[in-house]
Amino acid sequence: MSAKEHNRNKFLSEFPALVNELTEILVQYGLPKDAIEWYQKSLEYNTPGGKLNRGLSVVDTYVILKGYKSVDDLPKETYFKVALLGWCIELLQAYFLVADDMMDKSITRRGQPCWYKVPGVSEIAINDAFMLEGAIYMLLKKHFKNDPYYVDLLELFHEVTFQTELGQLLDLITAPEDHVDLNKFSLEKHSFIVIFKTAYYSFYLPVALAMYVAGINDEKDLKQAHDVLIPLGEYFQIQDDYLDCFGKPEDIGKIGTDIQDNKCSWVVNTALKICNKEQRQILDENYGVKNSETEAKCKKLFNDLGIDKLYHEYEEKITTELKTKISQIDESRGFKGEVLTTFLNKIYKRSK
Amino acid sequence: MSAKEHNRNKFLSEFPALVNELTEILVQYGLPKDAIEWYQKSLEYNTPGGKLNRGLSVVDTYVILKGYKSVDDLPKETYFKVALLGWCIELLQAYFLVADDMMDKSITRRGQPCWYKVPGVSEIAINDAFMLEGAIYMLLKKHFKNDPYYVDLLELFHEVTFQTELGQLLDLITAPEDHVDLNKFSLEKHSFIVIFKTAYYSFYLPVALAMYVAGINDEKDLKQAHDVLIPLGEYFQIQDDYLDCFGKPEDIGKIGTDIQDNKCSWVVNTALKICNKEQRQILDENYGVKNSETEAKCKKLFNDLGIDKLYHEYEEKITTELKTKISQIDESRGFKGEVLTTFLNKIYKRSK
Repeated sequence: MSAKEHNRNKFLSEFPALVNELTEILVQYGLPKDAIEWYQKSLEYNTPGGKLNRGLSVVDTYVILKGYKSVDDLPKETYFKVALLGWCIELLQAYFLVADDMMDKSITRRGQPCWYKVPGVSEIAINDAFMLEGAIYMLLKKHFKNDPYYVDLLELFHEVTFQTELGQLLDLITAPEDHVDLNKFSLEKHSFIVIFKTAYYSFYLPVALAMYVAGINDEKDLKQAHDVLIPLGEYFQIQDDYLDCFGKPEDIGKIGTDIQDNKCSWVVNTALKICNKEQRQILDENYGVKNSETEAKCKKLFNDLGIDKLYHEYEEKITTELKTKISQIDESRGFKGEVLTTFLNKIYKRSK
Repeated sequence: MSAKEHNRNKFLSEFPALVNELTEILVQYGLPKDAIEWYQKSLEYNTPGGKLNRGLSVVDTYVILKGYKSVDDLPKETYFKVALLGWCIELLQAYFLVADDMMDKSITRRGQPCWYKVPGVSEIAINDAFMLEGAIYMLLKKHFKNDPYYVDLLELFHEVTFQTELGQLLDLITAPEDHVDLNKFSLEKHSFIVIFKTAYYSFYLPVALAMYVAGINDEKDLKQAHDVLIPLGEYFQIQDDYLDCFGKPEDIGKIGTDIQDNKCSWVVNTALKICNKEQRQILDENYGVKNSETEAKCKKLFNDLGIDKLYHEYEEKITTELKTKISQIDESRGFKGEVLTTFLNKIYKRSK
């Protein structure tokens, strides 16, 4: 078993204890059995089935910040608390995904039916999403109430949650699946959407959480982390957009659907910025149409416009900038550039 | 203008400033104009249109606790903070109602289309609900961060929100509108549902918030408030259930639909407890059916069973118990039984 698999399994093995703790709260309240079982099922169905990158990042970041050689060197209680914060991000993600799937009318998620598509669930999934979020604050209170950074954790979750919702709002009104209007698109809006909808909770949040636990919580250090992780998260999503259109299905493990789904992707926004009048007409007529012929016309246009080359230029430029920023990190208060390098290395030139 | 109307108008006049503050946060984030306007519209459409009883209760309770004669005697800044907490409850309520209407597939709310029914909104309402909740924590941080009871406010909102969601969950799985199974009903479940879904956020929350601001925050005093307000909230909802079935439409301002909607109401649960086998069969066949003839059969059965009389016996018993409890309130640390009497007087023998 690789170290990565080992860390993932160790992290996963903490989850049942959290379900038990949440169950215990419901038992104390006197909630009848069928409702308790419903909540357990929602927690188990929606929380642990993904790649767990965000949750694992909290643990990995803490290990680096504290100079441990491996996750196994952490004292048991410390590991538990850091992993718990990782699970809180996964709960936050579960809350977003259950709701996003309803808003996008998606059918499957992580190789199984979306939660609202499970027989008997339907619109109850809205309340289940709320309760996935609610779990975060029940767990934080139980385990961090007496820590000096407790309020920081609460405020961080509040703010990042709100930011993610703002990104989701802008995405929803800019790119509704059933009404194409490319006049609403722009690279500026794309940037806002990906930073708010993805970068804050996926990149900044795990590192900031680990920093609070490690006691490295100077505003300057949080800003150093922020100023690398937010553009890094934007880069990650731009890469995701690129791969959806230009990646090989055998690499990315799915067939891209951004063009047919009218997604406000980096690819189409870049095309809109550089295309001429005739090319714009092709996009207006073919983007966001549920049809493989119109999709092929868009892809041909993206090739004609050299979007592939522009992506690789962007990628070289942003990684150079990020490496420079990381090399200039002030480590005098205990923050470590290595935290950021680790993130960058996971992303640079990935094909899946 | 009555004092009540004056207080309501004064409270309402604070709301635009809160919308401005939330707008300012979005402007600072750089959110594009169309998304800012969307959020403003959601806040204005969903928050202030109700009776505002919960929000006003925070102000009223604070006035009583501090011994002011009238709301107008509060220092301006104090009034603003207490009213802000009242608006936070109204935001919490807006968050629940936007989602509840989607889950119940309701058509109208407060005399206008439900938010998700407004053209162009649809499932985006889920994210809008999230952002109504998110507003609470943005406002609390801005105005209470430096108060010693800031964490208490956060934890109180977290816990009451979670409790309300638990009540909603039990209600949804016990009484789905499209699948009648009276075996799932019981007075015990009814009690849990109404206490968790309604009593905590409508009765306990406004008083507890006012107590924190007034500095009357001893655990014993919060428990004294809790131990009256939770049964009082249960009584309020039982009365609501009673009026839905037995109230005059001209009094309650609507035509009751609980029977046709398969609601887990106090009326049907009481009937289920005392009915014989034949009567049970009538209920099994006629309750929760969308049809005025089946509804009339249920109403006749409720009359045959003397539910009306049982309700009045319950009402006398609970009000006597509550009055006794209120008379025994220990006011030595500053809490006042008058807070609770005011609530009780608003509810006892109301017909609308």
